[in-house]
Amino acid sequence: MQVARIHGAGDLRLHDEPVPSPGPGEALVRVTAVGVCGSDVHWWQEGRIGDDRIAAPLVLGHECAGVIESGARTGERVAIDPAQTCGRCEYCERGEVNLCANLRFAGHAPQDGALRGYVAWPERCLVPLPAALSDSDGAMLEPLGVALYAADLGEVKPGMTVGVFGCGTIGLSVIQIARAAGAARIFATDLAALPHRLEAARRFGATALEAAGGREADAILRATGGRGVDVTFDASGEPGAVEAAIAAARPGGRAILIGIPCEDRTSFPASVARRKDLAIRVVHRMRHTYPRTIALVESGRVDVRSQVTHRFPLAEVGRAFAVAQRREGIKVVIEC
Amino acid sequence: MQVARIHGAGDLRLHDEPVPSPGPGEALVRVTAVGVCGSDVHWWQEGRIGDDRIAAPLVLGHECAGVIESGARTGERVAIDPAQTCGRCEYCERGEVNLCANLRFAGHAPQDGALRGYVAWPERCLVPLPAALSDSDGAMLEPLGVALYAADLGEVKPGMTVGVFGCGTIGLSVIQIARAAGAARIFATDLAALPHRLEAARRFGATALEAAGGREADAILRATGGRGVDVTFDASGEPGAVEAAIAAARPGGRAILIGIPCEDRTSFPASVARRKDLAIRVVHRMRHTYPRTIALVESGRVDVRSQVTHRFPLAEVGRAFAVAQRREGIKVVIEC
Amino acid sequence: MQVARIHGAGDLRLHDEPVPSPGPGEALVRVTAVGVCGSDVHWWQEGRIGDDRIAAPLVLGHECAGVIESGARTGERVAIDPAQTCGRCEYCERGEVNLCANLRFAGHAPQDGALRGYVAWPERCLVPLPAALSDSDGAMLEPLGVALYAADLGEVKPGMTVGVFGCGTIGLSVIQIARAAGAARIFATDLAALPHRLEAARRFGATALEAAGGREADAILRATGGRGVDVTFDASGEPGAVEAAIAAARPGGRAILIGIPCEDRTSFPASVARRKDLAIRVVHRMRHTYPRTIALVESGRVDVRSQVTHRFPLAEVGRAFAVAQRREGIKVVIEC
Amino acid sequence: MQVARIHGAGDLRLHDEPVPSPGPGEALVRVTAVGVCGSDVHWWQEGRIGDDRIAAPLVLGHECAGVIESGARTGERVAIDPAQTCGRCEYCERGEVNLCANLRFAGHAPQDGALRGYVAWPERCLVPLPAALSDSDGAMLEPLGVALYAADLGEVKPGMTVGVFGCGTIGLSVIQIARAAGAARIFATDLAALPHRLEAARRFGATALEAAGGREADAILRATGGRGVDVTFDASGEPGAVEAAIAAARPGGRAILIGIPCEDRTSFPASVARRKDLAIRVVHRMRHTYPRTIALVESGRVDVRSQVTHRFPLAEVGRAFAVAQRREGIKVVIEC
Repeated sequence: MQVARIHGAGDLRLHDEPVPSPGPGEALVRVTAVGVCGSDVHWWQEGRIGDDRIAAPLVLGHECAGVIESGARTGERVAIDPAQTCGRCEYCERGEVNLCANLRFAGHAPQDGALRGYVAWPERCLVPLPAALSDSDGAMLEPLGVALYAADLGEVKPGMTVGVFGCGTIGLSVIQIARAAGAARIFATDLAALPHRLEAARRFGATALEAAGGREADAILRATGGRGVDVTFDASGEPGAVEAAIAAARPGGRAILIGIPCEDRTSFPASVARRKDLAIRVVHRMRHTYPRTIALVESGRVDVRSQVTHRFPLAEVGRAFAVAQRREGIKVVIEC
Repeated sequence: MQVARIHGAGDLRLHDEPVPSPGPGEALVRVTAVGVCGSDVHWWQEGRIGDDRIAAPLVLGHECAGVIESGARTGERVAIDPAQTCGRCEYCERGEVNLCANLRFAGHAPQDGALRGYVAWPERCLVPLPAALSDSDGAMLEPLGVALYAADLGEVKPGMTVGVFGCGTIGLSVIQIARAAGAARIFATDLAALPHRLEAARRFGATALEAAGGREADAILRATGGRGVDVTFDASGEPGAVEAAIAAARPGGRAILIGIPCEDRTSFPASVARRKDLAIRVVHRMRHTYPRTIALVESGRVDVRSQVTHRFPLAEVGRAFAVAQRREGIKVVIEC
Repeated sequence: MQVARIHGAGDLRLHDEPVPSPGPGEALVRVTAVGVCGSDVHWWQEGRIGDDRIAAPLVLGHECAGVIESGARTGERVAIDPAQTCGRCEYCERGEVNLCANLRFAGHAPQDGALRGYVAWPERCLVPLPAALSDSDGAMLEPLGVALYAADLGEVKPGMTVGVFGCGTIGLSVIQIARAAGAARIFATDLAALPHRLEAARRFGATALEAAGGREADAILRATGGRGVDVTFDASGEPGAVEAAIAAARPGGRAILIGIPCEDRTSFPASVARRKDLAIRVVHRMRHTYPRTIALVESGRVDVRSQVTHRFPLAEVGRAFAVAQRREGIKVVIEC
Repeated sequence: MQVARIHGAGDLRLHDEPVPSPGPGEALVRVTAVGVCGSDVHWWQEGRIGDDRIAAPLVLGHECAGVIESGARTGERVAIDPAQTCGRCEYCERGEVNLCANLRFAGHAPQDGALRGYVAWPERCLVPLPAALSDSDGAMLEPLGVALYAADLGEVKPGMTVGVFGCGTIGLSVIQIARAAGAARIFATDLAALPHRLEAARRFGATALEAAGGREADAILRATGGRGVDVTFDASGEPGAVEAAIAAARPGGRAILIGIPCEDRTSFPASVARRKDLAIRVVHRMRHTYPRTIALVESGRVDVRSQVTHRFPLAEVGRAFAVAQRREGIKVVIEC
């Protein structure tokens, strides 16, 4: 089967490798769709993400769907939950599975991911897809789950106001989830250089504004009579987006930081945050979201399909990553 | 001006009385629309509600809107918040204003309500209505607020499942709010004898079921593979609705009891609730909801207008109450 | 080995049976101490608890400690967590392990418990005991965990006021946990006929009052200037205790129902609960409490030892149950 | 009467001024005790705090107690709540009174505080002191309230582990409150140069460690087997304390930032916080704490008296501030 491996910063190669054999509790899954995430682009360009580095050639890919090809569930179309938890540690016991002390996460070194023809993956991580969801819809459930977990942490309720800083897949998903959660007014920002993202934000019901290194918060403050919005989401990791998320939140509000930080330190104006008694939440992936994201997509409450702007076969994975890196579209999906 | 007063159980009379004079901090408000609530029907029929009784002839009416006729805000169209809180007690201090120890509530003995030409009411309780909201929309903000407070207590989140027992104004409002909060599936029940209510529930997106003294929960359990729904709402106060709310909630779920109890005691199967580790919340009116309910109606996320099925002038208040008592429609509004 | 089995209501017999063989993932544990719980007395007297009944002769015992006698951990002193969860259902996944859909609970039909010389039990359910905790301390961690879970649900915070209705092991544990959580004032009640329980409540810092079918709440209301206490706990399951828990809670307060109900239905005055916007929580066992209860006992913050008033060898299990049933002491422990 | 005013950075002068006249709703209070807060030292040394600056000569003092000298409550000993809230803004309505949009706070420009013989202050802000509390105890309720609010936000529960970075009055109060809330183990740090603070932390039950620019977190991680503690509190505002609060919190834990920041920006390692899914809360003063802090001091659960290490008459206010600035003791109280 064809496999895409990263051998170092900028060094992505296609290999021919044998189909893996499922171990106990695992099933063989033919991979059908893999989304390219911003974190994948980090791994590819820098050979690392945060403090984690590639030691051996790594297969990326954690937004993925496939078809089971072994065992009792053969033929079942599934979303592949990239998180293999241990089920034994303090965090698993409490249901804080995204914090599992022994986590193996697809496409995060040293655990190979889904950018290949087949994976052998634990059956309990294979989530059945209803007929209404396509393969790439299935792959989109992972980023949608991150957005849902973040919106839960933001405690978005009907009639509230929301700010979203960054309109990539996560930002647009947060906009849709916030909308589905009843937000009355949503402000969203992204770079002037990415007008298709601003346009998508508008289509999903947000008031779209051009980013300005944090000063875009001023426009939101003006539009809300100086009050700010109830909840803000940084969905880019850029320092300006964090700055804006802190500045645009109302006193007593919540700022949810989802973006993978572009710099080594997160920083914000001390006085501003303190005067507002602000609740800040740094988000690490998600937990318990598959049943609800499936329900949201199946019922049409959330549209993931229109976020997929580019599709490539696995053989063109290099081109796919280049498009994702240049942020030409929104979501790039690789069809294996 | 014309005033409708209850002199005892079943004894509703129209009087001619002088227009009231606003005291300090008050404004004179010309009443334009007053909704008839189930609790008003209780007062009218029984001369009491729960342990509270009529001592002197009482003006009912707490779902109301009007136009300010005195002071700096003359001409402003407003919703009239029926709750005059003291602002000093422990509960007000903490923002638990619906529990104010010194509360005066419009239309709850001994505080006269709005079924009259004019009221003198504290200016801080007069909530400006945007142009998009009609007078009767303004009157509907009070029951919608109760539904929003209840949905907040129910912690309805996108993708969840919900059960609503009773499809009067409160129940239909809960359905709409739950829908606005992202509920993926909503089951709603009312009596077979009230098909227009079941029909309205369907129109607002619920799966409507006929009530069966609590056994309607079985249908919900079947439809959810035995699991039950994440959150249930009793919106009728009937023992069967409470029974169903307890029975249809999933293990670890929440049951929110909004209905004004028809009997002296609330009761439920002990073992069932215990095995489910159930959170039960008994709801008393609402707090802090006007800005958010206005945003929801103004943005079209919630439709209160179609719930108003009958309109009467104040002179026909008796007919209005009779229609409300027979539950012929959904909401009866009296236009003063 | 010696085994105590219940063959029907009131029919407890001692048998000689072979020592069990541990299955995969299990260890053999020599049982050292087993507490007799009120629920055990229910099983023994009625042959059932709530809707669950004995089908085959049942070994009771779920408050238990022992010593591992097989595998790598041989010789380790442990508390035995009676709950074998499946680790796969929706509830386990979310960490709501007390709601596991496939739970096997020691001493709850059809799962045999610990009133025998040895048990084979999953290693992951064997919690190491520090040297400072005796075997019977280890057995007491289970009821202490129920009390801790209930206090967490009650959201007891420093400076709050608390009411506890019923001063058996659970009630006295709740008093101690509430004290450890900073409660400024604790009211506790039990029957006048059980003065040793009232005395123990006093020793743990509570104001002890004689129960009076619910009217004991009046004394608490008087002592708090009519306000009531922030949180109440029913720790008896008697209708009067539930009544008092509802009546003595302050407006906006919380009532936590832990007791196993003595009647088929739980019931309370509808108007009283509604006016107070009351949060009611029905409690089912506990979750995630072992590390914290061990820390509380080891640090001396909570005293479980003085609650053990009677000790019997397994051969005298009949006498032990009779003492527990007559509520002569507080906790009866059987030393195997 | 004697009045201490700050005229600019480092310029504190004593004046003789007329006794103020109470306005409507106000009482005249003879000030008996005023604590010197770290924020007072900021105002005195820099003529500002955060973005707020002195425009006119300012009377400091917001930790204060006195005796009512006018009206119906003449002779009553009271704690003076420094926060005059408007009671009408969105935040007051919701009970988020520390965020009041129109707040006047004693000793925060432009509102004069209590470092003078008498103040005229709203009666509703005068909290009666029980006989068991001395005047300086009454003054200590304000910082104790900040600690209590912070501990509430930290959700400290019995059996948890806690870290406190900075052992001034706030830090020591947090230690005591965490202890009263049942914390099983508390780690506390301060500078090696302030051994009396480390000694006080030990006396209140903490494991005291010398601060090391953030690296003190390593010792806490080692002592907890790499896990970290459930909740951390920055009670100093030093960058190293914030760093340690982020680093020492467990995955899924909470970091509560109470200290007034020493630098313009708050910053922390992005990757560390993200991997832990950390909840960060920036704290602004407190709300609703007087009844509970009084209960805690009156019942002896918390000892504020031993924290008062220095007392000066108002005439020696300059010496008092110098002692506070050098951090020679813990709390300096000025007795007027």
